[in-house]
Amino acid sequence: MQHPIRIAVVGAGGLGRAALRLLAHKQEAKVVALCDRGGYAFCSKGFDAETATALENGGCAALGEPVDDSIGALIHHRADVDAMLLTLPNLPNEFMPGVVERIVDAGYSGVFVDALKRTRAMQLMFALDEKLRAARCVAITGAGATPGLLSAAAVLAAQSFVEVERVDIWWGVGIANWDAYRATIREDIAHLPGYSVERAAKMTDAEIDALLAETDGKLTLRDMEHADDLLLQKVGVVDRLDQVTVGGVMDTRSAQKPVQTTMTLTGTTFEGKRSSHRFVLGNETSMAANVLGPALGYLKRALWLRERGIYGVFGSTEFMPMVLR
Amino acid sequence: MQHPIRIAVVGAGGLGRAALRLLAHKQEAKVVALCDRGGYAFCSKGFDAETATALENGGCAALGEPVDDSIGALIHHRADVDAMLLTLPNLPNEFMPGVVERIVDAGYSGVFVDALKRTRAMQLMFALDEKLRAARCVAITGAGATPGLLSAAAVLAAQSFVEVERVDIWWGVGIANWDAYRATIREDIAHLPGYSVERAAKMTDAEIDALLAETDGKLTLRDMEHADDLLLQKVGVVDRLDQVTVGGVMDTRSAQKPVQTTMTLTGTTFEGKRSSHRFVLGNETSMAANVLGPALGYLKRALWLRERGIYGVFGSTEFMPMVLR
Repeated sequence: MQHPIRIAVVGAGGLGRAALRLLAHKQEAKVVALCDRGGYAFCSKGFDAETATALENGGCAALGEPVDDSIGALIHHRADVDAMLLTLPNLPNEFMPGVVERIVDAGYSGVFVDALKRTRAMQLMFALDEKLRAARCVAITGAGATPGLLSAAAVLAAQSFVEVERVDIWWGVGIANWDAYRATIREDIAHLPGYSVERAAKMTDAEIDALLAETDGKLTLRDMEHADDLLLQKVGVVDRLDQVTVGGVMDTRSAQKPVQTTMTLTGTTFEGKRSSHRFVLGNETSMAANVLGPALGYLKRALWLRERGIYGVFGSTEFMPMVLR
Repeated sequence: MQHPIRIAVVGAGGLGRAALRLLAHKQEAKVVALCDRGGYAFCSKGFDAETATALENGGCAALGEPVDDSIGALIHHRADVDAMLLTLPNLPNEFMPGVVERIVDAGYSGVFVDALKRTRAMQLMFALDEKLRAARCVAITGAGATPGLLSAAAVLAAQSFVEVERVDIWWGVGIANWDAYRATIREDIAHLPGYSVERAAKMTDAEIDALLAETDGKLTLRDMEHADDLLLQKVGVVDRLDQVTVGGVMDTRSAQKPVQTTMTLTGTTFEGKRSSHRFVLGNETSMAANVLGPALGYLKRALWLRERGIYGVFGSTEFMPMVLR
């Protein structure tokens, strides 16, 4: 593997900026390209954590001259980028798969990692498998926290059982200032009863403020459409999508997690004993740490696969993330 | 992958017999060869769970005519075996690596999976890497519960942190009748203060009974020499072996686990928050389920690697186990 790995962070919202801060701790990789709606910047030496602060204060203008087509600008540097970390909004479902398709169609050959959440969006990503194989690309999809870290933990947990009954993921996220995660919160609102992806996307900030005020800033979501189901079905942990449930509580007014994030897998052993294994995330770990850490571990794995001539679109449940140093 | 996978169970003690029972639930694999000190049997149709009962009641005689060199007999069938599941005693350290070396030297080309426990034994296994590459073999070592399931869970847990402080594994095992796990218990006694591998190996059953009587049948072990440390160092989760501790309690008089089995990884996130992720095994799951389930998942992964021309000796922390159906 060539070091340092040259990464493009595609999407400079809360997660993208956190990626800059996290990668400042790593020797094996650097961020050479930054891409957002209306802004693009390239630096072969690599951006540092201060860029994240500049973006936070100055928005896309901190990236320099405005750019009409930032993905087009990124494509221009395609030969200088080993891996693309997609920290783009999940909505609409076609958005992230569409960006990947456009970049591959433009002749990029490298790896992609995303923290895609919705089942339907992931189905669109898997539909690109043949195209990515032909282009000698690797994508690992659903490589964040859930799906990602927790669905991979379910694959491990499943090993002890000959029959898996169900997988239940219950997450807690605390964000002190939701302003930094506008897209994420709109995506979560779309899971509420009576809301849709389209309705949530169209809400103004004032409407979201009003909705959050009703519940003291907390959003409780049940039976979310989360691609953990698809990823666990793909590797044979469950037969049916409805054996996997995902829900949780987001507190938009406190950095403290309102509930502990847990993956519980229940099954029956070969001796006929019913039991549950659990993977529990420490309350002090942020959403950004639990999404981006795994995403970067899977990014290193994607490069490992590509070096061995193994191409295509894979789920985070298919491979162990590596440790990016 | 050719199905069903033809497996040799090498070692027909408690774990080997449990493997027969577990594999009776699987369509993708069958046990075609059974090997123990003084006994060998081959059946291309595959052995069923009843063979385990016969072995339990009749010992090796249930395998048919006595055999002086059972590994030699297995080597004779090397072309009819896709994968070798090593359920051999861990002691002495040279034993399992020696069996692998002999089988490879005799011209076998296939995969091995073991549930090796001791760090020094695993170092000997890794020393076979070049030999296995040349023979187009794959071995995944330390592929049981600890090391195995729990060390792989530590690799996942590590993803959320930029610095890992420590990994603590604390296991509970309950075995109603230690007679079925004579080798395992001798191996555990060797970890007690004042005991060595050699001393434990030489103990008579009566001496072990007397030792267990002193502690009401329970063995509490701390700072065990367990290869989780080596496996986690190899993939970069920890820098030093002493950052990983393994200990636990074995109750030899009850099938109930005396303590819950837990892997706790403590580290610091990129935001500077110290926290711990935990992987907790359900109390109703037996040692056999937690060792053999992962071992068979890694066996499928080893075949996957071999099909892609990736050969050598790997640790269970390097790959995700697959789901054997």
